[in-house]
Amino acid sequence: MIADNDRGLAYGDGLFETIAYIDGQLHNWSLHWQRLVLGGERLHLNLPDESLLIEKIHSRLHNEQMISILPHCIVKVIITRGIGGKAYQFPEHPTYTLLINIIDWPERDPSDYSQGIAVKVCSLRLAKQPVLAGIKHLNRLEQVLARNELDDSRFHDGFLLAHSDVNGESSEQALLIEACSSNIFFLRANILYTPLLDNCGVQGTMRQYILQLCEQYGWPVEQGDYPLQYLLEADEIFISNSIYGIVPIKSITLHEKEFWRHSLKQSALNLDQSYVQRLAQLINPSVHRSNILL
Amino acid sequence: MIADNDRGLAYGDGLFETIAYIDGQLHNWSLHWQRLVLGGERLHLNLPDESLLIEKIHSRLHNEQMISILPHCIVKVIITRGIGGKAYQFPEHPTYTLLINIIDWPERDPSDYSQGIAVKVCSLRLAKQPVLAGIKHLNRLEQVLARNELDDSRFHDGFLLAHSDVNGESSEQALLIEACSSNIFFLRANILYTPLLDNCGVQGTMRQYILQLCEQYGWPVEQGDYPLQYLLEADEIFISNSIYGIVPIKSITLHEKEFWRHSLKQSALNLDQSYVQRLAQLINPSVHRSNILL
Repeated sequence: MIADNDRGLAYGDGLFETIAYIDGQLHNWSLHWQRLVLGGERLHLNLPDESLLIEKIHSRLHNEQMISILPHCIVKVIITRGIGGKAYQFPEHPTYTLLINIIDWPERDPSDYSQGIAVKVCSLRLAKQPVLAGIKHLNRLEQVLARNELDDSRFHDGFLLAHSDVNGESSEQALLIEACSSNIFFLRANILYTPLLDNCGVQGTMRQYILQLCEQYGWPVEQGDYPLQYLLEADEIFISNSIYGIVPIKSITLHEKEFWRHSLKQSALNLDQSYVQRLAQLINPSVHRSNILL
Repeated sequence: MIADNDRGLAYGDGLFETIAYIDGQLHNWSLHWQRLVLGGERLHLNLPDESLLIEKIHSRLHNEQMISILPHCIVKVIITRGIGGKAYQFPEHPTYTLLINIIDWPERDPSDYSQGIAVKVCSLRLAKQPVLAGIKHLNRLEQVLARNELDDSRFHDGFLLAHSDVNGESSEQALLIEACSSNIFFLRANILYTPLLDNCGVQGTMRQYILQLCEQYGWPVEQGDYPLQYLLEADEIFISNSIYGIVPIKSITLHEKEFWRHSLKQSALNLDQSYVQRLAQLINPSVHRSNILL
């Protein structure tokens, strides 16, 4: 329970993380912590010490394990600016409210990994706000409204474009940012691309992990401003998320028409495996390391 | 208290209103209700019936009056999408959480009304998001961060400009939207102007009340897109808010320099009273209907 006048509720004045807990490990903890620190700096928000936070998470997991066996689960951490302050004004003495909740591991159809998912381009455009871009704050109405544009039986996620002041700009010309709850990568002529998140979007921990891996293995990767139409030339497209790992895209629908479909031509990498297959084996949480046959 | 997994906390997925309760009346109730209805439509959010909501507010006020005498107070209503839904997805069965809190009437220095307040132009720019513009939703990080740019001993509010994609646009050229927790009006050559709130900002109930009054009395008023530099030609500037009524501006600071100051020349209306004085007597809650001597 949380107080009615907590700033987390009143203004969404706080941050959150959803962390995969798998085989006794907080998956990519250091990336989650890095994003919390970035969010804390941007919002001038007091955070607990890292060691205290880890201790509290493990204690919460321990209590939960008293009740039922947890092979894997989601640890959701919310840190708000707590109670106080005159309306929007910060409280005089910095404080925080920490909530740790354990959420059941969500089932995902294995065919999502083997065959890819269908997505559509949402009509809601993300507002450009550099101060809030990248961090995982509690102001998520855009994602809530975008997610609910989907007809779930057909589409498993939505692609989001950036709002623009340019008159007459088409959806194809608008910048691709992210999916409702994942980041987007596309492979084009052996180079991996992912949108820059300087103006909108959330820097997913799985996205950061992929960028680290690419650097480590020397795989070419670029971050930039990519209009949606760049995807037309993509050989493979996938989304990444801290819980689901990476999931290939099989088709993209724009304005009720098929805009892109994964073709069965040999991978641009000219390997036995597609790029997504290779990456999935490295990156996906063990529970999702199914065969990707795309 | 509210559940940890309420969507109001998790995503700011809800609306709020802060209503002045004065002399046994919910001030401008119908305008507050209209804005809730608009917010409900935009967010596809279930609302309680108006009569039920009023009943619950009065019951809450009644309980509070058992404890102490309430000459006037603020009634804060929060309505969230409640608990449920898979992550950002709406709950399958529409529901809501309703919270009603009573907040002490905030003291305001009478000289704010008689001499006006000093404000500064905040460096944070409001993101353009037509879907969320106008309504009073729970995603208020922009206002929280902007409010905390103020050095309270000098500035009593902050003016907010809109974010723009135009390269090299100066602050003077950027569109004026609102103050941190109020709307802005300015008088220029006997016409009252207030920024359009189609892309960002909150449609304050006091703003709507002023627009209604202008129509009723036949006073010329215009809503439009006004760059900050339009204020340079303003004869009078004031802000409006459901609790404080209208408060005159005595000076505006931009980039640490004085950008505009109220001059003591005779009002453009050429009356004994300034426009702000006349309006304040009509509009301000009785507790703030002090003499405005500006």
